[in-house]
Formats: sequence, structure tokens, C-alpha cells
Amino acid sequence: MTFSERNFIKQIEALTPASIDGLIKGIGDDCAVLAKSRDQATLLTTDTLIESVHFDPAWHPPYLLGRKAAAVNISDIAAMGGQPLFALLSVGVPAATEEDWLDQFMTGFQSMLEEHNIILIGGDTVSSPALMFSVTVIGEMETEKVLYRSGARQDDLIWVSGPLGEAAAGLEICRSHKKEYGRWPSLVKAHLDPKPGVKLGRILAKSDMVNSMMDVSDGIATDLAHICTASSTGAEIRAEDIPFSESLLQAAPTLHLNPLSLALRGGEDYQLIFTSSPEHATSLPRLVRDQTGGEIFSIGRITSGQGVTLLDNDRRKDISFQGYEHGG
Amino acid sequence: MTFSERNFIKQIEALTPASIDGLIKGIGDDCAVLAKSRDQATLLTTDTLIESVHFDPAWHPPYLLGRKAAAVNISDIAAMGGQPLFALLSVGVPAATEEDWLDQFMTGFQSMLEEHNIILIGGDTVSSPALMFSVTVIGEMETEKVLYRSGARQDDLIWVSGPLGEAAAGLEICRSHKKEYGRWPSLVKAHLDPKPGVKLGRILAKSDMVNSMMDVSDGIATDLAHICTASSTGAEIRAEDIPFSESLLQAAPTLHLNPLSLALRGGEDYQLIFTSSPEHATSLPRLVRDQTGGEIFSIGRITSGQGVTLLDNDRRKDISFQGYEHGG
Repeated sequence: MTFSERNFIKQIEALTPASIDGLIKGIGDDCAVLAKSRDQATLLTTDTLIESVHFDPAWHPPYLLGRKAAAVNISDIAAMGGQPLFALLSVGVPAATEEDWLDQFMTGFQSMLEEHNIILIGGDTVSSPALMFSVTVIGEMETEKVLYRSGARQDDLIWVSGPLGEAAAGLEICRSHKKEYGRWPSLVKAHLDPKPGVKLGRILAKSDMVNSMMDVSDGIATDLAHICTASSTGAEIRAEDIPFSESLLQAAPTLHLNPLSLALRGGEDYQLIFTSSPEHATSLPRLVRDQTGGEIFSIGRITSGQGVTLLDNDRRKDISFQGYEHGG
Repeated sequence: MTFSERNFIKQIEALTPASIDGLIKGIGDDCAVLAKSRDQATLLTTDTLIESVHFDPAWHPPYLLGRKAAAVNISDIAAMGGQPLFALLSVGVPAATEEDWLDQFMTGFQSMLEEHNIILIGGDTVSSPALMFSVTVIGEMETEKVLYRSGARQDDLIWVSGPLGEAAAGLEICRSHKKEYGRWPSLVKAHLDPKPGVKLGRILAKSDMVNSMMDVSDGIATDLAHICTASSTGAEIRAEDIPFSESLLQAAPTLHLNPLSLALRGGEDYQLIFTSSPEHATSLPRLVRDQTGGEIFSIGRITSGQGVTLLDNDRRKDISFQGYEHGG
């Protein structure tokens, strides 16, 4: 069989009752949300990285892999606007693993936790036929500020927090263009050492201007389709408004890469994608600029339809779920 | 290198700061303990089961494997006296896995959760070279009732909640004596489908008679050594007081098994092991009998020394950490 993550998650969703004391949101978003107190929520997320499925130790240095194992889970907390606080780590290690490799992995893992003041509170290690890292991150935030995938409304503007497609280009360089490794360090770094958007996520959640949010892990064709499904809306995005870095635009011809395709279908950019009412078209980017010095980019709008439509030179194309499915 | 779980956990311990707002207990016990409110604590535990390291799908039916993947994590909550509430599941599946196999696994997993009113709130699935299940369970209890490994005091009685060595005998039958599979169903079941002691753990935590507790996952030589290390005490156990089931005593000669060795060094009984002041020598078993109908067994006492000593026919032997180390 072809094993599909979406089918499995549907199966888990079917097992999760709609209303349970203490449970605010079960499966189907970046994190599960539990009631901590009257107005505070606990966020929980778990993700597993497996050798040769999610990473290749041949070219992923252990220090950076440790950072990434933490970062992709921290990003799930950021994706709802939360503050990550604690982490649990489960490590599967083949017998032939050098102790130094694992030390570097742990040092990298810990360095990413420290950048976000996250405390490692538990973990175990097991023998395994392949390297395997399973991480749980626990976060917290004000219950009424949590940003779900399901909050998008018709006519909302769709925003992304930075250039797309860089991580997918970096993966391509590591996999197929090793000679170019030193030439495009920012692309390689986007793949090997992604940065979770915790600070921006917090600002957006507190702004009261954002209706829905998630992180970009599977390419926006898929990630935006999740927002549309959860919100019972459609979405239109404009090809010419998708932000690309100078590096990606320069590297693309040499590496025979299509930046638009990487942005739509590549994975692991870990930017935030979010929607706001059009009335915040200038106030939201201004707030972000004032508080972070950074830009956000409007790439389209939420519609009353279904699915994700790409507008490219007056052509319209349904691109829903045409992204990368991890491990799919 | 030989990869040691204890070394890895020491490394994580070194990374965990002593005092952090909201963190009551980091790594080094069955669960991490977080402050939920002024008097309630959140318990968190994570464990990973990997094919051919922790289970063999050749003889572990998927339904029972699903139950066990949940049970071993629920047992960590029981080991501190907590009430399990929520679970996260991360599944790694080789491409060649039959969909029916995974359905049965999920049905079993869910059946164990339902027996304890636990809600599955999240999960993901990934491709993997081997079957892999990583489970996180979240529990809750009164902060001041949490039972740690570190609470044992000199002269405490050492108790176990039921017969030992059955799961190790069951594993031996599955692995090397398949013809005996149908003859000793209770031993095989102890290995394939262990029962976490949630109800008893809650009763013991609320009794105010218990000073320290953990679950028996690595054999009592190792588990009791953890209590001794955490409590800065020693322990003496009497071979003749270790409880064995009739089935194990009957099966042992046929299968060339040594019940005492299985109890000390075998793993995965998932009984509770706990200590109390000697003044509760009769009141504690009476409380348990009244509330559960079951027995508890006194097997020795906590001493001012170091390590775990076995008293066997007037011989004394240090057996500290001579247990099974998962994946070690």
C-alpha cells in the first residue's frame, strides 16, 4: 500500500471525541491545545525525524541536525502563536553510531532549545536500525489568542513571513549538486538549519489582526489547502506576489530549479502563513516592521470557493495539496 | 561503541537546570512533572518502541502491540500515582506494511486508551525502515501527592504490587518455545499485553503511606537501584519473599527458566514497586485489599547503605543494576 499521512490523521481524528473536559483542540492543527487554567492553554506537538526519510546523515552535520530536530517542533508551537517552554526527546541510535556524532547532535539540539529558553525535561534512548529522533514540545499561551488553521474568513488577505522555496533548493543542492554546496550558503542553511518563527508568531497572535495561521512545512499548495479545508473556504494566490530570495533567483538557472514550483511544492521553509481581514492591509505589516524590523508578504486572498487556485499570467490552476507530503 | 541509556540520560540531566519556573521535576523519574496550577501538576512521559529491538512483529499480534505501546507509557504515569488523560502517537511505518496490520494496531492502541479514559489528541505518521511507535502520555494529579523515586527512607518496607518474572518468561516462550505458546497463556499475555497499574497507583498516592514509587520495567535489580540512587539509600531484598505466580513456578522446569533470575533481571512486568514506613506494615496491604481486592507483597527494606543487596539462604550479593537495559 501507499501509506498516506492524511489518511492516518483522518483515522486518528475519527477516534478523537468532539468535546472533552480540558481538551480545547485535538488532532488536525499544528498542536493539540489543552486548558491549563481559566485563560491559559497548553500546546503540545510531536514529530519524528527518520534517517533517509527526513534527513541524510551523509551531508547533514549532526550539530545542525540536532538544531533542526528541535526547530521543526518549535515551529509547530510558533504556528499557533505560542511560547515554547519544555521539550522531551526520544532518540533511536544504531549500534554503529559514534559517540561523538551523538554528542554533537545533543549539543545542537540543546543550542536550539537555549535560543528559545526551552528546557529539556525528559527523554529516552533506544537501539534502532536507523537514526530516529522523536521530539515533543510543550508550549503555553493565552487561550483566546490561539491562532488555528480554521479561522480564515472570506476576503482575508493571505500573508507569508518570508521568502519561500529556499529550503527545497537547499535540499536539492545537498542531494544533487554537492559542488555548489559552498556557493549558495543561505539556501543550504535554509534546509540544514531552519529558524522557527516564535517571536513573529507571538506578535501576530497578540495583534488581534490575524484570523488563521500555520507554518510552511509541506509547500504552500498543501499548507494553504489545510487552512482552506479547516476553514471551509477557498484561496487564490498570485504567482507574481510570492516572495523569493535573491539567492534563489540567482541559483535557479544554474541548478535548473523552478522557484515557483519549489515555493508551492517544496517543503520545510518553516515560514508562517497567515490570514487577516483586508482592513489590516497596511497596519499588520507596519506592526511587524515596528516590532521585528522584518517584512511580511501578501500573496493572495481567501475566497468563498474551495481549494487553492494559483493565478499565473491570467491562467487559473487548482494546486490544492500538490505539495510535499512528509514520508508519504 | 556500546550505547548506554543511563549515560545518555546522565547527559540530558546535565543539560537540565535545577530550578525553573513551572518545572517541578525534570528528567530522572518515570515522568517529568510540571506545575499546572497552584496545587495540580501535569505529568509527561515519552517512550519509543522499535521493531526487533522492543518487539517482534513475527509473534506480537498488532492489536496487542497497539495495547502495549499505550500501556508502557500509561504505566509511567501510574508509577508516580497520576491519572493519565491524553496521548500523542507518532508512528513509523515501512512501505510494505499491510493497511490491515496498522488498523489492528490502532484499534488495540485505542482500546487501551479507552480502558483508562485517555483521549488521543495528536499524532503523525512517517515512512520508516522499521516499525516504530513513539508515544507521549500526559497525566495530572495533586502536586503534593506525586510519588518520586527519590522519597525512600531508611527502614522503609519495599513492596511490589504482584508477581514478578512473568513477562520475561512470556518473552522467552514467544522467542524460543513457540510450541509452549498455548500452554502458558497467562505468561504469554504478561509479555504481549501488560496491564498498567493506574488504579493502584492512584490509591497509593492518595494513601499518604507511600514514600517512593516506580514501575517495574527493567527487573527489580535495576528498578530498585534507581530508587536507591535517587534516594541516597541502599536496599535489601529477600529472595524467599519475591512473589511468583503458580504458572511461572510450573512452567520454569519445563522451560529451563529460573524464576528468581527473571524477577531480578527480566523486564516489563509493569508492576509497581514502592516503599513505606514500617508502621504501615499492616495498614497499607489492608487499604489495598479493601479498595482493589488485590494483594501487595513486602520483599525487603531500605537501608542506610548503598546499592541493592539480595539475601538468599544467608548469602548476600550486590545485584544493583543487573537488570535488563532496554535497547542497551
